[in-house]
Amino acid sequence: MASKPISRFPVPDLGELPDDIRERILAVQDKAGFVPNVFLVLAHRPDEFRAFFAYHDALMERDGGLTKAEREMIVVAVSAGNECQYCVIAHGAVLRIRAKDPLIADQVAVNYRKADVSPRHKAMLDFAIKISNAAGTIEEADFASLGSHGFSEEDAWDIAAITAFFGMSNRMANFTGMRPNDEFYTMGRG
Amino acid sequence: MASKPISRFPVPDLGELPDDIRERILAVQDKAGFVPNVFLVLAHRPDEFRAFFAYHDALMERDGGLTKAEREMIVVAVSAGNECQYCVIAHGAVLRIRAKDPLIADQVAVNYRKADVSPRHKAMLDFAIKISNAAGTIEEADFASLGSHGFSEEDAWDIAAITAFFGMSNRMANFTGMRPNDEFYTMGRG
Amino acid sequence: MASKPISRFPVPDLGELPDDIRERILAVQDKAGFVPNVFLVLAHRPDEFRAFFAYHDALMERDGGLTKAEREMIVVAVSAGNECQYCVIAHGAVLRIRAKDPLIADQVAVNYRKADVSPRHKAMLDFAIKISNAAGTIEEADFASLGSHGFSEEDAWDIAAITAFFGMSNRMANFTGMRPNDEFYTMGRG
Amino acid sequence: MASKPISRFPVPDLGELPDDIRERILAVQDKAGFVPNVFLVLAHRPDEFRAFFAYHDALMERDGGLTKAEREMIVVAVSAGNECQYCVIAHGAVLRIRAKDPLIADQVAVNYRKADVSPRHKAMLDFAIKISNAAGTIEEADFASLGSHGFSEEDAWDIAAITAFFGMSNRMANFTGMRPNDEFYTMGRG
Amino acid sequence: MASKPISRFPVPDLGELPDDIRERILAVQDKAGFVPNVFLVLAHRPDEFRAFFAYHDALMERDGGLTKAEREMIVVAVSAGNECQYCVIAHGAVLRIRAKDPLIADQVAVNYRKADVSPRHKAMLDFAIKISNAAGTIEEADFASLGSHGFSEEDAWDIAAITAFFGMSNRMANFTGMRPNDEFYTMGRG
Amino acid sequence: MASKPISRFPVPDLGELPDDIRERILAVQDKAGFVPNVFLVLAHRPDEFRAFFAYHDALMERDGGLTKAEREMIVVAVSAGNECQYCVIAHGAVLRIRAKDPLIADQVAVNYRKADVSPRHKAMLDFAIKISNAAGTIEEADFASLGSHGFSEEDAWDIAAITAFFGMSNRMANFTGMRPNDEFYTMGRG
Repeated sequence: MASKPISRFPVPDLGELPDDIRERILAVQDKAGFVPNVFLVLAHRPDEFRAFFAYHDALMERDGGLTKAEREMIVVAVSAGNECQYCVIAHGAVLRIRAKDPLIADQVAVNYRKADVSPRHKAMLDFAIKISNAAGTIEEADFASLGSHGFSEEDAWDIAAITAFFGMSNRMANFTGMRPNDEFYTMGRG
Repeated sequence: MASKPISRFPVPDLGELPDDIRERILAVQDKAGFVPNVFLVLAHRPDEFRAFFAYHDALMERDGGLTKAEREMIVVAVSAGNECQYCVIAHGAVLRIRAKDPLIADQVAVNYRKADVSPRHKAMLDFAIKISNAAGTIEEADFASLGSHGFSEEDAWDIAAITAFFGMSNRMANFTGMRPNDEFYTMGRG
Repeated sequence: MASKPISRFPVPDLGELPDDIRERILAVQDKAGFVPNVFLVLAHRPDEFRAFFAYHDALMERDGGLTKAEREMIVVAVSAGNECQYCVIAHGAVLRIRAKDPLIADQVAVNYRKADVSPRHKAMLDFAIKISNAAGTIEEADFASLGSHGFSEEDAWDIAAITAFFGMSNRMANFTGMRPNDEFYTMGRG
Repeated sequence: MASKPISRFPVPDLGELPDDIRERILAVQDKAGFVPNVFLVLAHRPDEFRAFFAYHDALMERDGGLTKAEREMIVVAVSAGNECQYCVIAHGAVLRIRAKDPLIADQVAVNYRKADVSPRHKAMLDFAIKISNAAGTIEEADFASLGSHGFSEEDAWDIAAITAFFGMSNRMANFTGMRPNDEFYTMGRG
Repeated sequence: MASKPISRFPVPDLGELPDDIRERILAVQDKAGFVPNVFLVLAHRPDEFRAFFAYHDALMERDGGLTKAEREMIVVAVSAGNECQYCVIAHGAVLRIRAKDPLIADQVAVNYRKADVSPRHKAMLDFAIKISNAAGTIEEADFASLGSHGFSEEDAWDIAAITAFFGMSNRMANFTGMRPNDEFYTMGRG
Repeated sequence: MASKPISRFPVPDLGELPDDIRERILAVQDKAGFVPNVFLVLAHRPDEFRAFFAYHDALMERDGGLTKAEREMIVVAVSAGNECQYCVIAHGAVLRIRAKDPLIADQVAVNYRKADVSPRHKAMLDFAIKISNAAGTIEEADFASLGSHGFSEEDAWDIAAITAFFGMSNRMANFTGMRPNDEFYTMGRG
């Protein structure tokens, strides 16, 4: 079967893009060696692109109690629950690298409850999945459970905000039919 | 029963906030006559606040095929599906005003399928709710249904993006226990 | 968008109705200042009308442990769960009046877990929603939870019976497309 | 395992009951040879008992387009969906007798889609189950489907009202732990 | 309504079948007095037939901690959850006979939580239903609950394996439209 | 985090096993270069092991209309729906090899609707997922849809039987906490 396109919406040429967006994309390309498709797909709407990545960076590059690997673990578990191909495959690659663990991403994607994760990480992902699937039922007992595993109130915010942000991202990726780059499938498996 | 607080997280004083955030809040206060609690609750994290409202404005104040009332109708239907008190009550008020219809917000919040909406708006909300609940199953037939009611491809993006963004907002509001201001309950009912 | 009719079934003229039904309707009109549409819609079937309102009165006007405001709170929470526009909007109005609280109805309709309700009322509504959604799984632990908040066995019956009765009413209202009167939207908001 | 009691609530002695209720119960006993437990369990609340059976009779003994067997078929399918032991077993017995078919009740209880029912009855039960599970999504296409199988608008009301009434009954039976009489299990199997 | 066929796939004549399969079928017929349709329907694929019944016997005729009645109770509860007409009706008959209880099968089929079963059997069926509906969420607490009712680790395997095997059987029966023999409906009711 | 064990049940030594089982396991090891854990975990119960693999081979090595890659595609989609880590990861590896496509397994595991599969394969997987999740609702229209994509009646049996068999396998793997071998993660990605 031929590959699907990277988006069902028009994908702009780099040359057509506003300077700040083109520069961000080129910087990513320099660092990663390729342009992750999420940049090209979302560049269809420059203002939304800017806000999306500002939000992303505020959550994923923030100093705080969660490690980068923990943040990626949340992204993979939530995105799997939302059946988002782009995010599971792309962030699965990042998780393998951040966690220095070639197995963890596939385990978390299929069933985080059975993955090689600590009870602390299991509690973190339980909280994330409850925010993703039934945020209206979150109650103090859920915060208490996080607390008993050493997460602070600010950590809880990080978990919830990453979950909520990638829930948005998952919906946009499914809506646009955003295709993961081939490169992601093998990164960090070595 | 005493009222609940506006957030289970600390709410900053205006005086403590970065200038740009304080100015945005004061500008809203000038226009609305009060500060909607979403501004105060999210100001706990200034970088996320900036990205959130930049995204909000990119979607809700964008020139495009959807009227402002249509955008608010999407917000209310999606937020009701996500059981988000803040967004249903606050955006319900805005919808009443934008649509110049004192009944529409409560109707859409309880069951948009039975509301006084046109077949075109019913199709728009069906698409939004499918993005919200099962984005992984969106398929070409869903786009075709929108198209048959006169929505363009760019309109589809707007519907999906508003749905996805407020899905994030709904999760954060439920997570923080964000309380709607009392003012919203009666706005636009006159 | 033009308003929808009050029922997709024929609505009888008052003059055609059996005397007892017409008299009940006129008495309600005298008291409320208008005829709530549920009376007109259900009058299509006089025998069912009589049984429906006899049942309603047996539950809602019974002396017993629950206050009238508590009964209406149950009706609003259950009807919201069943996406019943008529019952949420009409009984929301009654709840505002009975509870002397202009905010409570909208809060309970969107998400009773986040409403300004006491732990006792939260437990009452949890029980009601479990009866509404999964009565086959009710077990002694659920009765014990009610008891720990001071509800008697007879109170439990009231909660369950009101839930079950309005579950029936919600289904009939959705089936007939029963339209709430415009008057309900603003009652008790003052 | 010892049998469970017929109700977790007190069951009144016939001698204590108001005359009209005792008479109704004795009349049923005369006709059936035993007192179905629903009469004893609901007699705990005489006013609700009267309204319940008035409603029941208005729907189940009404002249109309549906045969008595069809009405019982709806009761069994809906009650099975609601996991109501009393109603499936008691009305299963009545269905076998009304339909003069010893197999139909068990088939409909387990999976009406696979039962020996005509396409017309399949459509009737599809409508009933949609009213039972998702009345808020009923739309004109559902009425049209019934119409295409020869059901009138009044028949649709009967199907919906029987479904809604037994949905209430199912919830009360599950709540009270209403036990089916042993006699029902074998009636009509001959 | 005319009866449906026993399978939507071709049903082989006994004469056409491989000797071992024909002999197994004749042995069952000798013992039961009729050939349960599952043998005829699955004989369409001899290799799968052999594996299916080898598996069945390994689980249902194994020496072990569960009684034969307990195994059938699991089959009936799981098959009811999967809406499998053949398995509920055929194994319901076997359960009545094994448990020497004419009422238990119908009770378990409609709602095992309300059946005349001991707390031990309730725990056994809770475990089975969790394996059937959400095996990915099984955790140590579920094993502990079984253990507290005296089930060994090997008993847990039996419960899970019977559940999993009949989940397969339920899917094949629903897929093929496998019809229960008329004989099953009345067996063991005496 | 330390790796979890390959089963929460005892895993027999090869030396303790019956000869036929040991020989099967050694033959697999010769061919694959390692012993897939499913063989070791299920060897805890030799009779069930024999029936399981006889069934497996009857379905997966049968001559028939489905290619081996198609069969593995069904296994991966169904196992992902059942959150079965062992089956998704092990059969994902086999799918990559059979389909000679390093990307297909991860795509199908996350969301087969968005994978690079033909409309024919999409229809095949839709049928499988319906058998897996709601076999009781399968109807002639589902067979017709398969037929319109060129699948025969016997192909439909294969799809359903593979789905049902792996549904059993998924439940046993989740129950036992069956761990995928590390080797599977990278096979076929080259």
